[in-house]
Amino acid sequence: MIIQEKEQRNWQPIVKQFEAVLGKNGVVQRREELLTYECDGLTSYRKRPAVVVLPRTTEQVAEVVKICDRHQIPWVARGAGTGLSGGALPVENCVLIVTALMKQILQIDLENQRVVVQPGVINNWVTQAVSGAGFYYAPDPSSQIVCSIGGNVAENSGGVHCLKYGVTTNHVLGLKLVLPDGSIVDVGSPVQEIPGYDITGLFVGSEGTLGIATEITLRILKTAESICVLLADFSNMEACGASVSDIISAGIIPAGMEIMDNLSINAVEDVVATGCYPRDAAAILLVEVDGLEVEVAANKKRIAEICTKNGARSITTANDPETRLKLWKGRKAAFAAAGHMSPDYYVQDGVIPRTQLPFVLQEIENLSQKYGYRIANVFHAGDGNLHPLILYDNSVPGALEKVEELGGDILKLCVKVGGSLSGEHGIGADKKCYMPEMFTETDLETMQWVRQVFNPNGLANPGKMFPTPRTCGEAARAQTEKKFEAIERF
Amino acid sequence: MIIQEKEQRNWQPIVKQFEAVLGKNGVVQRREELLTYECDGLTSYRKRPAVVVLPRTTEQVAEVVKICDRHQIPWVARGAGTGLSGGALPVENCVLIVTALMKQILQIDLENQRVVVQPGVINNWVTQAVSGAGFYYAPDPSSQIVCSIGGNVAENSGGVHCLKYGVTTNHVLGLKLVLPDGSIVDVGSPVQEIPGYDITGLFVGSEGTLGIATEITLRILKTAESICVLLADFSNMEACGASVSDIISAGIIPAGMEIMDNLSINAVEDVVATGCYPRDAAAILLVEVDGLEVEVAANKKRIAEICTKNGARSITTANDPETRLKLWKGRKAAFAAAGHMSPDYYVQDGVIPRTQLPFVLQEIENLSQKYGYRIANVFHAGDGNLHPLILYDNSVPGALEKVEELGGDILKLCVKVGGSLSGEHGIGADKKCYMPEMFTETDLETMQWVRQVFNPNGLANPGKMFPTPRTCGEAARAQTEKKFEAIERF
Repeated sequence: MIIQEKEQRNWQPIVKQFEAVLGKNGVVQRREELLTYECDGLTSYRKRPAVVVLPRTTEQVAEVVKICDRHQIPWVARGAGTGLSGGALPVENCVLIVTALMKQILQIDLENQRVVVQPGVINNWVTQAVSGAGFYYAPDPSSQIVCSIGGNVAENSGGVHCLKYGVTTNHVLGLKLVLPDGSIVDVGSPVQEIPGYDITGLFVGSEGTLGIATEITLRILKTAESICVLLADFSNMEACGASVSDIISAGIIPAGMEIMDNLSINAVEDVVATGCYPRDAAAILLVEVDGLEVEVAANKKRIAEICTKNGARSITTANDPETRLKLWKGRKAAFAAAGHMSPDYYVQDGVIPRTQLPFVLQEIENLSQKYGYRIANVFHAGDGNLHPLILYDNSVPGALEKVEELGGDILKLCVKVGGSLSGEHGIGADKKCYMPEMFTETDLETMQWVRQVFNPNGLANPGKMFPTPRTCGEAARAQTEKKFEAIERF
Repeated sequence: MIIQEKEQRNWQPIVKQFEAVLGKNGVVQRREELLTYECDGLTSYRKRPAVVVLPRTTEQVAEVVKICDRHQIPWVARGAGTGLSGGALPVENCVLIVTALMKQILQIDLENQRVVVQPGVINNWVTQAVSGAGFYYAPDPSSQIVCSIGGNVAENSGGVHCLKYGVTTNHVLGLKLVLPDGSIVDVGSPVQEIPGYDITGLFVGSEGTLGIATEITLRILKTAESICVLLADFSNMEACGASVSDIISAGIIPAGMEIMDNLSINAVEDVVATGCYPRDAAAILLVEVDGLEVEVAANKKRIAEICTKNGARSITTANDPETRLKLWKGRKAAFAAAGHMSPDYYVQDGVIPRTQLPFVLQEIENLSQKYGYRIANVFHAGDGNLHPLILYDNSVPGALEKVEELGGDILKLCVKVGGSLSGEHGIGADKKCYMPEMFTETDLETMQWVRQVFNPNGLANPGKMFPTPRTCGEAARAQTEKKFEAIERF
């Protein structure tokens, strides 16, 4: 195995090589400066990198990766460090390649609806750059004002609008990649229909284990003529969930469809006081529809009818941007509000078939009582992507372990009903031990084949995504040898 | 290299093994019966397989593949054999695995909008199976009443509706696969947001070179409340092309948007006499919009305005199914009509950025004159997917070669303006020599890594998709050895 936990490498000659490529300002190695890079958004895991490098160009990234390859140094790519699964968590004695200085928008081609960016560009900047001309970039993670496109690509990020518009992979047309051997490859194409293997799709969501994207071609969409947000409040969660199913069954695909439960509602009202979320509601449903004015008006009417039929106590609608923002405000502040309710919170991210919503929410309530922790539920209801927020106090010894176990039970539940371990936060360091819940050994082995062929020495983001670092696992090795013996035979 | 052109294998013991798995009826080896399988829709290439096998289950496919692996026999998967790039063309002394008997629809889950099918299920059957309940399967190749879902997956097929709804890869949620070593793997998931590498996306469009799909989970969509078709006719192609750009720029995404030129119009009027396509038009534009009634009405109005502004001579619209069908009839018959215009025709398939349409059509006209062959243009204008039909007479010595050269020049032109070698027909045997026009050596090598790891002995559909059978190429070998030496080092 490559990562030697107690390795005593002589870093100085290596740092000199990095400085030759990046200049002195492009290399960080002072202990106090490295602190910033010890974790990503999953703050319960920490590890200090040996060196941080800050390249500005594809060529610089390639040179850095080549140096790592030459010296067999593990490396981890990091965007803005807002990820929630520890995907950008450093490994011991690694080089952390931070894309924070790669923040240029390289090309805006409105006619063909595409934008080429460096990976450090912040998600929201893309929309800002094209909104004047009537376009926007669809994937909108909660962290969109701080997270980077490179990180979005690594984790295949979603957001409230992915119900209608899909996740990051549906909006990436092409990538310039630096592979773990330092070679530079272009995959994908500005036109959408291309032959050959879909290597672009393979890289999106590969969590930095196959290489690093240094230029990203994004598809931008025309801003809808009209947008409307509806807020319906319910005295029980079942009615709220039934409304979601009924809206989809009616053939309506809203831009977004979110549910918040009573605990979340009160948390956000305590903190941001929207005044729109009734504190006594068991659940609220937020639905955004977009399109032509006539279409939005018609869908608004149908959705209101469906919610009313299911027993909604009141329905508020907003067409103008200001009121829409007010209705969304509480939802957007939900994670922050959880931090006010409790000293600490743990966000889980799982997916279930929409039809399993009532059953799964009841089971989560049972788990909450069994473990003795309150759980606030905020979720992308339309695509069954749950975000239970487990509230706890990290200063209580053993609390984190119990909460992680509870989080794990929720994930197992998601998989049991036919769902998935992650909707948009990725596997990273946090969830890798749950991968066998969802995938068979053969399934995981097949993924490992792909990893090993791009990242044969396991230097790119080792120990992430897969249950064990299989590059050194017996089974993987046997499999690999069997495969590659064959290749060498011809 | 595996494929020995003049190999004298003793097939009888192998056939016995196939018969043990499939029964006598599941194995075809009589010379006259093998004739059917000599080519796919690209009839200019022919090769007789050694044996044809007709499995009915995943397990039978796996057993057949294992027998091939054991005896190092190349194999090719074939669906309905309607492909246009020679993807299912047999190779010398191969086993052809025909999925024609794997035609069961295994599961219909309307609530979660998915259908599980065997690969031999015909594209159109999926829609037929769910249309009563108000659903349909979106990808609709011209051959949809005869082509199989398995073939659609292999070639990542499109159709007239892929402008709005995407190609096959956007509608495949999961696959059960038999890999070239005979192992059975499940990839993807019924829920759309899943972690891990997107192996499903990698397989769709891999043209049978990575394995064979034996169960396919498809997403089905709600049938739109309203559908309208507009036919606008123009006295010049530029105005027709400009209308396409203007419709997209207005933020409208029609379900489909097709252009036919004067030669195609007259061809179809000669053959199917729609009576709707004016014979003196330089070009007609067919636009289908779908959605809510109010939305369709609004878009119809805006599209008509745009076409009129661009000089359309007349605009016909159709809302009821019967009239819509009448407007589509000529477009659907375009390929068949080409066969009536000329003893033979060659369909090309390339993609260009929409903005390059006028330039590329002019260049195609220049090439037509240079080579002295008439070219009818029928194309998916919305996504820039061209289908020039080159009319020729195969009985003239040397004609096919000249036509292939002309087709190649059109492809090079597509790539030169930033487009692609294939929109929906695949590379297969037909276009592999053009891959280096679009991809660098490093790009192709990267794809080869993937192929070699899944298909290390090159037994699955050898000699397709890539410019040379790189499994025996020096460069690939050197690269592979470099990679796998490293793997064996830990």
